[in-house]
Amino acid sequence: MRLDFSVAAHSLLYLEQKKPRLVSSRELAASMTTNPVMIRNILSVLHKQHYIRGVVGKNGGYQLDRELAQINIGDLYDLTIPPTLSYARFTTGNTGAVGEGNDISRNIEETLTDLFTLADEGYRAFYHQFTMADLKRDIEQHGYFKSIAQAPFSK
Amino acid sequence: MRLDFSVAAHSLLYLEQKKPRLVSSRELAASMTTNPVMIRNILSVLHKQHYIRGVVGKNGGYQLDRELAQINIGDLYDLTIPPTLSYARFTTGNTGAVGEGNDISRNIEETLTDLFTLADEGYRAFYHQFTMADLKRDIEQHGYFKSIAQAPFSK
Repeated sequence: MRLDFSVAAHSLLYLEQKKPRLVSSRELAASMTTNPVMIRNILSVLHKQHYIRGVVGKNGGYQLDRELAQINIGDLYDLTIPPTLSYARFTTGNTGAVGEGNDISRNIEETLTDLFTLADEGYRAFYHQFTMADLKRDIEQHGYFKSIAQAPFSK
Repeated sequence: MRLDFSVAAHSLLYLEQKKPRLVSSRELAASMTTNPVMIRNILSVLHKQHYIRGVVGKNGGYQLDRELAQINIGDLYDLTIPPTLSYARFTTGNTGAVGEGNDISRNIEETLTDLFTLADEGYRAFYHQFTMADLKRDIEQHGYFKSIAQAPFSK
């Protein structure tokens, strides 16, 4: 699933590099080793959200519709990897078990869901620090992310 | 996979509640709706790391070997869900594609791996804020985690 994000990021960088030329989904697929159907699904989402614009027809294709610096990586992450995928249904409990100790079973699901949700919110907040221009810069000059990433919690 | 963490947390809470009685893996499995083989695998890991002690034999079973307040949730998370599971292989690129634009393909894997690794480190740091005593408290008094969780990044 996280591949959706990677494919989206890759596509936006590629379109930016080819600007203002129109790029077909076939060309994009060839630039990654990913199947064209997956690419098309992701391009469709990016198109709907106005990250890219598409021109139909024989010589049609896609073009970037925003500046990389205006594309927040966290927004892109949330778009391609919805929060529900991150922590859903990974809890025990709620078995309705009879006997002592079932107060744990009854309540642990809510507690773990809160814990996972809070952790996931922090995880997503991390991505919101950056734009696609930062990603491009790290590609050109590897180590940039490591140098600017803020420590998440003071220890 | 995240179920491993939930099962471990559930097991420790259950053992703490039954202390000092020995609890069989069968009883633990019955307190969750999880298969006994999975429970036994996780108990074996917890045993090896001295979270619990085991007594073999007919009336044998497991017992908590630490105080809940001495069990860090982040340590438990790292133990049951190794970092390699979190972000491995979810990148595009490295296709060796020929032509323009392959500098993206060549370099995006390193960049995305850094991004995901940093995000994952922050994610794990979140869990390290808490102990199993906090988890128990949230089960008894739901909302505790929400009330104490530190904002991960100042916005």
